[in-house]
Amino acid sequence: MATAPSVSYSMTVRLEVPVGGSAVSQITTVVESSGGHVTALDVTASGHERLRIDVTVAATSTDHAARIVDRLGEIDGVTLGKVSDRTFLMHLGGKIEMSSKHPIRNRDDLSMVYTPGVARVCTQIAENPEDARRLTIKRNSVAVVTDGSAVLGLGNIGPQAALPVMEGKAALFKRFAGIDAWPLCLDTQDTDAIVEIVKAIAPGFAGINLEDISAPRCFEIEARLREALDIPVFHDDQHGTAIVVLASLHNALRVVGKAIGDVRVVMSGAGAAGTAILKLLMAAGVKHAVVCDINGVVHCERDDLKAADGGTALRWIADNTNPDGVTGTLKEAVAGADVFIGVSAPDVLSAEDVAAMAEGAIVFALANPDPEIDPAVARRTAAVVATGRSDFPNQINNVLVFPGVFRGLLDAQSHTVTDGMMLAAARALADVVGEDELNANYIIPSVFNEKVSGAVADAVREAAKAAPAN
Amino acid sequence: MATAPSVSYSMTVRLEVPVGGSAVSQITTVVESSGGHVTALDVTASGHERLRIDVTVAATSTDHAARIVDRLGEIDGVTLGKVSDRTFLMHLGGKIEMSSKHPIRNRDDLSMVYTPGVARVCTQIAENPEDARRLTIKRNSVAVVTDGSAVLGLGNIGPQAALPVMEGKAALFKRFAGIDAWPLCLDTQDTDAIVEIVKAIAPGFAGINLEDISAPRCFEIEARLREALDIPVFHDDQHGTAIVVLASLHNALRVVGKAIGDVRVVMSGAGAAGTAILKLLMAAGVKHAVVCDINGVVHCERDDLKAADGGTALRWIADNTNPDGVTGTLKEAVAGADVFIGVSAPDVLSAEDVAAMAEGAIVFALANPDPEIDPAVARRTAAVVATGRSDFPNQINNVLVFPGVFRGLLDAQSHTVTDGMMLAAARALADVVGEDELNANYIIPSVFNEKVSGAVADAVREAAKAAPAN
Repeated sequence: MATAPSVSYSMTVRLEVPVGGSAVSQITTVVESSGGHVTALDVTASGHERLRIDVTVAATSTDHAARIVDRLGEIDGVTLGKVSDRTFLMHLGGKIEMSSKHPIRNRDDLSMVYTPGVARVCTQIAENPEDARRLTIKRNSVAVVTDGSAVLGLGNIGPQAALPVMEGKAALFKRFAGIDAWPLCLDTQDTDAIVEIVKAIAPGFAGINLEDISAPRCFEIEARLREALDIPVFHDDQHGTAIVVLASLHNALRVVGKAIGDVRVVMSGAGAAGTAILKLLMAAGVKHAVVCDINGVVHCERDDLKAADGGTALRWIADNTNPDGVTGTLKEAVAGADVFIGVSAPDVLSAEDVAAMAEGAIVFALANPDPEIDPAVARRTAAVVATGRSDFPNQINNVLVFPGVFRGLLDAQSHTVTDGMMLAAARALADVVGEDELNANYIIPSVFNEKVSGAVADAVREAAKAAPAN
Repeated sequence: MATAPSVSYSMTVRLEVPVGGSAVSQITTVVESSGGHVTALDVTASGHERLRIDVTVAATSTDHAARIVDRLGEIDGVTLGKVSDRTFLMHLGGKIEMSSKHPIRNRDDLSMVYTPGVARVCTQIAENPEDARRLTIKRNSVAVVTDGSAVLGLGNIGPQAALPVMEGKAALFKRFAGIDAWPLCLDTQDTDAIVEIVKAIAPGFAGINLEDISAPRCFEIEARLREALDIPVFHDDQHGTAIVVLASLHNALRVVGKAIGDVRVVMSGAGAAGTAILKLLMAAGVKHAVVCDINGVVHCERDDLKAADGGTALRWIADNTNPDGVTGTLKEAVAGADVFIGVSAPDVLSAEDVAAMAEGAIVFALANPDPEIDPAVARRTAAVVATGRSDFPNQINNVLVFPGVFRGLLDAQSHTVTDGMMLAAARALADVVGEDELNANYIIPSVFNEKVSGAVADAVREAAKAAPAN
């Protein structure tokens, strides 16, 4: 699968170029003929003999960027200067900050923001604990908690290396839902310790977003925290993914004219995301689901159900899916299926596999950065194809979900997050795509669609207010 | 001691008033004759017969404010409307927020702030952990950690009620030193648990500010964290107080012309602040110190050294102070002393006690809100008097210290905070008061003196860079 040049591999190269000759005109030619894109070209200083030019180039990878720089240096008369990586420049000093809402200009301000005035506010909360949601940051604050054990596609890189992702997540919380999130990157991967730590830091937050914690620990951590805390705990890698997949499936089924209770769904991947997707799909009405992991179809007769993950998740899948007792490989299972959902590994599905699916097949190939099948290949026979990538139609992206979900939970002052709220979020997200807009290449809105966050928030808030447990 | 009306007890009262008659003119009279101050009076709506007036009033206490409102309601023809407390209004929804440094306008921004671009930054940090200080918020972030066990003068009010203080602290960190601090209010008061939690959250921060944790647990928590962590751990109630007291003592001694190695110091209070002040004063050269607690002078023959606090702090004081083996009461000890420093309780010192001190006596009466002695009374015979209050000269206020100290530590990327750094901070703070400015009523600068934070930061940064352990 060819990858297009991207600003995420964008750099600005400073060049000293002779005024005469063809050097200037060669710059763009060299970049484009090397497979890059010139996205900006600024003359930042000029003299009688030399120009200083800052040229900004999008490449496809770090290596590709280095090759383009080398070729620019080979232009006759050009001297290479500093090469600045735009992504790294944006990360210098971190991407988020803390701001004060009130100016502290004089002693009067100080006496209200801090002592002695603040003491009365503290006393008020000590006497009426529910006032913490009115008089402190708790109302609008979410902790973004990770142990760095399963960061993006990078794996177990630890808490400090995970920080840029958590900062980005916090920035997205603010951008799309006005929520104040702060990253907490924990220097432990012990389940008991993580549970105790998150319980302890909970008083200052109205919600906990667990992030990039590896399976199967993430299941136990989330379950124990939900049991212990009176604020909602949401593992975005599981539930954010599940909600956006369900929303996409709702609309894909509208495109092909099938009902959710009738379709045969085959899933590839039984990790955190896969298990959460499966459970939400079943809560939404999917009756025929078969799950495959690296050893093929999960069924009750398999003797590795215990070993794989301590027994909980895979055993649950075996007991609750595959009613017809299918066995064998993913490729065998997918023959005749209506829906394929992959959250597994690149290239596990072939063009022939997709061709063998039922008429009006739906393929969600969500492995990142390389999907289970090239979407262009899948599209030859499948009716609807979606991926996690931003360079193909139908990007299934958690950013569509977590800001709105937390906005709704916080506005409802919800103590929990339930399947009912998540089903409502998925339905609301699907309904952002109007009947007149819906087609095979537009089953899910853009993350920059302004209606998304509010629609999801409204749905979650109403579901939370209606929940009896809340 | 009379207390002046303060904006920290400021409210805005909405009144409906008849246009005719004397009601309007009575408003200010009633407030002033009740001991309040009118700080604003706005007519917010007007008709032929009635005016709506918002009058803002400073009072001395909550009860006083209520009495003023009652008297306003008794004015003939006046109808009382909503009463808004200005301090509470400033706290609505919390005092701080999280902000993103970069706009996220489009897919290009998203691909650099978040996936896929962020993955390269994570990889860079995983391979070069020291780059976390360059490419993440760690460089400029401080965790403000409390368990809510000793909040201001309010005592053990718990983590949620402590949040307004921690938010205020975070706001001051930003205002005076540009530091991004976030409050962590812990739902445990177990020493082991607090140590484990702070160790675990450390990767995302460059410093830990412990706040309002009760003695003696605060000593052990700080000591264990300093041992375990590679970032500085600073308990502001101890060390911030100690630094500002030492700075004030430096300048008070300049006023009376005495040397720090010669003076006899009597302290009242052997809690967290008292112990830290004592230790820093001794590190600065004080040789003759006597400490009193509620049971009188601390000396080696006392049989309650163990019981009082688990044995550590009081035993240390007995072993390291009081070289002449003084025994008896505070009043006995203070006779002939050069310096009295109180961090204890109201009214433990009388006018006669101060009169019995040596010529050129220095009295720091720091109990809050009510000092060990009315400063106006102490000033009759003492040469220099300071308190913790903002309504007398010489306010000894931690805000003068902690922002600059952390700014210096963060700029030096210091792994520790040492006595040497704290001594440098105290000296720098004292030196902000020039020789031409120094007098008995001006031994310490205002918190709004623009030189303070930078001077303290510079001194700490240079001391940290020179520290061999760093």
